[in-house]
This record gives sequence, C-alpha cells and structure tokens, in this order.
Amino acid sequence: MKIGIIGAGQLGRMLALAGYPLGLEFVFLDKTADAPGGQVGDIIVGEFDDPDKLAELADCVDIVTFDVENVSASVVATITGRTRFLPPLAALEVAQDRLSEKRLFAELRIPTPDYRAIDTPEDLASAADELGFPCVLKIRRLGYDGRGQVILRTPDDLGAAWETFRGVPLILEVFVHFDREVSIVAVRSIAGETAFYPLVENVHENGILVRTMAPLQDVSLTGLARDHAKRLFDRFEYAGVLTIEFFVRNGELLANEMAPRVHNSGHWTIEGAVTSQFENHVRAILGYPLGDASAVGHCAMVNFIGTMPSLTPVLQIAGAHYHDYGKTPRPKRKLGHCTLHRSTPEKRDAALAALIEAIGQENVSKVTETG
Amino acid sequence: MKIGIIGAGQLGRMLALAGYPLGLEFVFLDKTADAPGGQVGDIIVGEFDDPDKLAELADCVDIVTFDVENVSASVVATITGRTRFLPPLAALEVAQDRLSEKRLFAELRIPTPDYRAIDTPEDLASAADELGFPCVLKIRRLGYDGRGQVILRTPDDLGAAWETFRGVPLILEVFVHFDREVSIVAVRSIAGETAFYPLVENVHENGILVRTMAPLQDVSLTGLARDHAKRLFDRFEYAGVLTIEFFVRNGELLANEMAPRVHNSGHWTIEGAVTSQFENHVRAILGYPLGDASAVGHCAMVNFIGTMPSLTPVLQIAGAHYHDYGKTPRPKRKLGHCTLHRSTPEKRDAALAALIEAIGQENVSKVTETG
Repeated sequence: MKIGIIGAGQLGRMLALAGYPLGLEFVFLDKTADAPGGQVGDIIVGEFDDPDKLAELADCVDIVTFDVENVSASVVATITGRTRFLPPLAALEVAQDRLSEKRLFAELRIPTPDYRAIDTPEDLASAADELGFPCVLKIRRLGYDGRGQVILRTPDDLGAAWETFRGVPLILEVFVHFDREVSIVAVRSIAGETAFYPLVENVHENGILVRTMAPLQDVSLTGLARDHAKRLFDRFEYAGVLTIEFFVRNGELLANEMAPRVHNSGHWTIEGAVTSQFENHVRAILGYPLGDASAVGHCAMVNFIGTMPSLTPVLQIAGAHYHDYGKTPRPKRKLGHCTLHRSTPEKRDAALAALIEAIGQENVSKVTETG
Repeated sequence: MKIGIIGAGQLGRMLALAGYPLGLEFVFLDKTADAPGGQVGDIIVGEFDDPDKLAELADCVDIVTFDVENVSASVVATITGRTRFLPPLAALEVAQDRLSEKRLFAELRIPTPDYRAIDTPEDLASAADELGFPCVLKIRRLGYDGRGQVILRTPDDLGAAWETFRGVPLILEVFVHFDREVSIVAVRSIAGETAFYPLVENVHENGILVRTMAPLQDVSLTGLARDHAKRLFDRFEYAGVLTIEFFVRNGELLANEMAPRVHNSGHWTIEGAVTSQFENHVRAILGYPLGDASAVGHCAMVNFIGTMPSLTPVLQIAGAHYHDYGKTPRPKRKLGHCTLHRSTPEKRDAALAALIEAIGQENVSKVTETG
C-alpha cells in the first residue's frame, strides 16, 4: 500500500517513519527536492496547487493525505475522483479559514473567543469597539506559527493594522487572558473507531509552539475536549488525526483553532504514548484498527526553532529523544524537537530544567501574549 | 553525518529508521535494489565482496557499518583505510568462524559447550566418540538461522553428515540439553561508555529465532552475561552493539555464539526499552552518549517467518507493534516481527496467547532440538 503525502515537511517525514514498519510506502509532493520527507521517500517536485503534479501524485498511490494545510482545496478537489483523499476535504476547507472555522465551532456548540469578520476599516473600528482592547487581528487564511496576526492594544493601533493586512479577509478576535493553552489530538478511522490522546498543555512564544507537557490530568477538561472532537468527527464523517487547540479560562475551554492533521503538540506521542499520532493517522485513513492512545509516563516536548542545539548535551540527558528534521536553519523555523520521558511529572520537570540548561534555551514564561 | 551500511536487510532498515531522527543519513550496499533498506535510503547495488562497490560506499559516507555478518573480512579490510569501519573488523572476523569464536571465548574464560575442530572423517569419528551423542556438526563459516548444521544422534549418522558438508571446515559441538536459551545485547561507544540491555529469553525452532521474552529477571545470570560482554568489549576495544547468545544449564551460561551487530533478539527494544538497540548502535559508533538501555514494562517479540500474518488481527491487539520488512515471502525467511508490550509479565503472556491465536501461529515448544 502506497500513501501520497502533500508536503514533505517534518510531519510527512514522521508519518513515513511510523508507516514503514506497517509495510507501507510513501511518496511526497513538495516544492523542494531536499525537504525532510525526501530522506525517507521519493518526492515529486512541484507546487501544491499544480493540478498536474497533484494528479501525478494521486495516480501513483492508493490514498493521498497531507502534512500542510495551506493547499488549495479547489485544486485538491480535482484529484478526489482519481484516488481517496483523507482527512476529508471539507474539514481541510473549514480549517483553512478562521471565520468558517469559528462559525462551525458555533454551529457545533463548541465555545470560542468572541470574534467579528472584518472586511472594511469601518468593520474593524466598530468590532474593536465592541470587543474591547486588547484584541487580535488575524488574516482569515494562510496564517501559521503566529504569522498573519497582530495584537491591537489601543484604538491608535487600528490604522496601522489595517494597512498591514489590507486586501485580504480578516477576523478580529477578543484577546483571551487565558490560564493555560491546551490541545487534544484525536483520531477516527474510516470504520468509525475513535481514540483520544490525553489533553496536553502547550506553551507558545510569538505564536509558535515552544513546549508541550503531556499528559495534563484534568478529567473535566478532558471530557469537554473529547466531546468537542466527537462533534467535529460526526460533522465530517472524519478519518485521520484531528487536533483542536484551546484556551483554558476559568475552567472552561475556548476553541482557538483546529488542524485536520497530525500536530506539533502530539509529537510527544512517538515516545510517550502506546501508539504514536503518526501511526494512528495512517491506521485511521487505511481502515486498520486504531492503536492505544494512552500516555505511558510523563513527557515534555521542546521545539527547536531557528537553530538546532548540539546533539551531545541533549543525548546526555537520560530518556531524551532527539529529532532533527534535516532542515536548513532559518529564524522562526521549526528545525527539530526533543521529547523527554519520565515516570512522574516531577522527574519530567527536573529533566526539562536540565535540558533547558544544557541547550541554553531561555526559559519561556507560561503565559504569552499571542492567541 | 552519513552512515554506510553493508547490507540493506531489515537490520539496516531499522538502523536507518532509528537514525533519521538524530539527523543522520544512510546509504546501503546490497545485492538487490529492492532490499528493505531501499525504502528508506539509497542502495548501491553490488556484491558484498566487490572491492569497487565497497570503495564506492566508503567514499560517500562518514563511517561504514554492516547489517550482515557474511561479508569478506579481507575485502572489507581494503576500505578501512578510506573511512572508519565499526564494529571492529577483528570482532567480525572472529564471529565469522565458529572455531575462532569458541577459542576466543575460552581465552576470555567465557564457558562454552564442549567442541572439536573437524577437518577429516577421522576427526569426526573420534570427536563424536569423545563428546558423545547427540552432538551437532556445524560448518565453521557462513551458517545462519539454523542453516549449515545437523544433529548427529548415533554413530550411523556420521557418514551422511560428513558427505553433506565435506570440503568445508567444520566444528562438532556437544548437544546441550539446555534449560533455556538467553541472549544479551550490549553496546560500547567509541568513547568507552557501555550500556547493557536486560537479559532476554529466546525460543528457536529449527535453528531460527521465533520468539523473545524480555526482560528475563535473573540477577545472577545477568551479572555473568554482562561480565562476558565486557571481556569481549575490552578484547576488541569494541564500538557498537554486540550480542551474545547463551544456553542456560543448571544456572550456568554457556556461550553459543556472538554477533557483532544489532540482533533479532533485541528487536523488542524499539518499543520496550528507553533507547532502542538500533539508536544505541548508531550513537555508539559515532561517539554520542549512549541512551538508557533499561526495559520499560514487559515484551514478547514474535518473528514472522515464511509468511506475514494479516495486519488487522494483529493491530486489534492493544499494544501490538507490527513490523513488516517489505520482503518477498520465502520459506524460512524472516519477513517481519511483532512486539507486544505490557506492564506485567502476566499481561504480556496473555497478550502473546491472543496474538498466537489471532495469527494462527502454532505454539512453539520451549525446548527445541537445535543448538
């Protein structure tokens, strides 16, 4: 069985590394031949929105999935007649537009921060007036890792913010003074079987995930998060891994966004869960039984952004699992991560402190300023 | 850093799968382009004893290691000036010859079953007389997975056995009525650091490993096995993974053979140890700190030989990790394995029973007839 993956980034590479033991093969479509997936599979070099290249990929595999969300849904639609495509295109389309996403959440009674659609400067002024300051102006489409958003602190910020993004559809969201950020990685197979990884706590810096602590043991929030994931599963007759990121405020979950794919906040599952999110995504879209999504012990996942630390000091920490995606360093670019695995949260926290010391990464405050 | 591997079988493939996360790349030399390693790295197609092909491999990598033992040590010697080669060639040479191996064990005071070198029919007759029946006649070189050996039960078997193998150097070994078979996988880095996986129990059928149960909790035997491994490490200034297989009889270890490489009886470490044998082999030969070799929970590893079971019934067993090497089925060929992971030996044994039921594999008696 051969799986085609649109995008040969680290997510694609980790899908392939998890899938080879199951006897599967992988082919990628990516803009560059030296993308991370190229180390472990063939890459068809082309743009994600090139229908011919997508058709070439579709025609040489049994099923197509993706590791990037920013692919043109209308172009992908041209291949859904040629081969299977999962997770469902409808879920991808909704996730690509923050406004559609928020509206769907509302329809499914999944609470979100308050928001307004913004198409004109007048929209922006009146929405900011209604939501209050600070608030966050975001592009509706193609944003990722904190790009495409700006915090508005006073009415004086409105003009510059409008100019920054003018011409693209926008959304203004209330700034959430959250207690913590969490996410759930869930999976549903084409046979309808579901599995839920435990809720985890995430720390972002400048909109980029820097750290995940797993599991977050909160029965009430876990129940809520699973319930929200189930509603999305039902809505799309979903298959594959689905991630939802939430703010937690006063014991409530406010959905920030969904990702219809494996997710950075699930990387800890490679070493910390019985079955990784990558293996379960593959199992789900092929209709195999899902693997146990339970956590085994306690993990901290630390992203390496912009630069990679030396291997030796990291490996000196017992139970440290180093992941180098083989990418060219660039500011704000996710180049790799490390997962620390321990039997108790206390030991995990001590190991995390040792890792941060070893790699000279500055400590990251738990409450950051971006949504 | 790029690692060259002589042989692109399942061991090479698993080395590469473990090494990519560390940021490493892999190139293989193998007789066929569709060997398992070809899925996850480039293959230079050629014979293992072709000096030009070995040189081509050596010249495009930073270090060469191997996943097959049956390579010509004299040909490999031609590349040791071009690049690093580990584990040490001297260890490979000894392991290639059962007589040299037994003599080294004796020199290092590692007990073995009694044996005699056999070069003539007269040698065979007198050795069988001295060792008694049953005894096992083996070719000294190039045997594997039970091939190249025959059990002699009475003096009447001598003539046919001699004819079977005539012309190649032989060794006659006493047949050990063992209580169990065990092995230790140990690792030493070029910096001299060592780590030892727990002792495990193995079950063979017709000379082929069919099952490993890990860990075997026996403090006394574990201490003995580690001590033997250390002597071999010191002897060769070893680097990489080293495996020793033993018979256990009356609480004593009798060394059967050594393998200067990752080993089938260590496959459980992928899911069952903090750091897998594959990752530790790579760390060791590159001089990185070794990873924790402790077991986490209890595993059963079941080999798939000759035919692969269907994926679905295996994956239905919680905590089952399926490994399909992507090989063409052939009788007696190792095509894949499955590791079951549980928190207690009792749960592990129950899961193993369920697996055997699910795949229709016949139960294997614990005491088999071959050495």
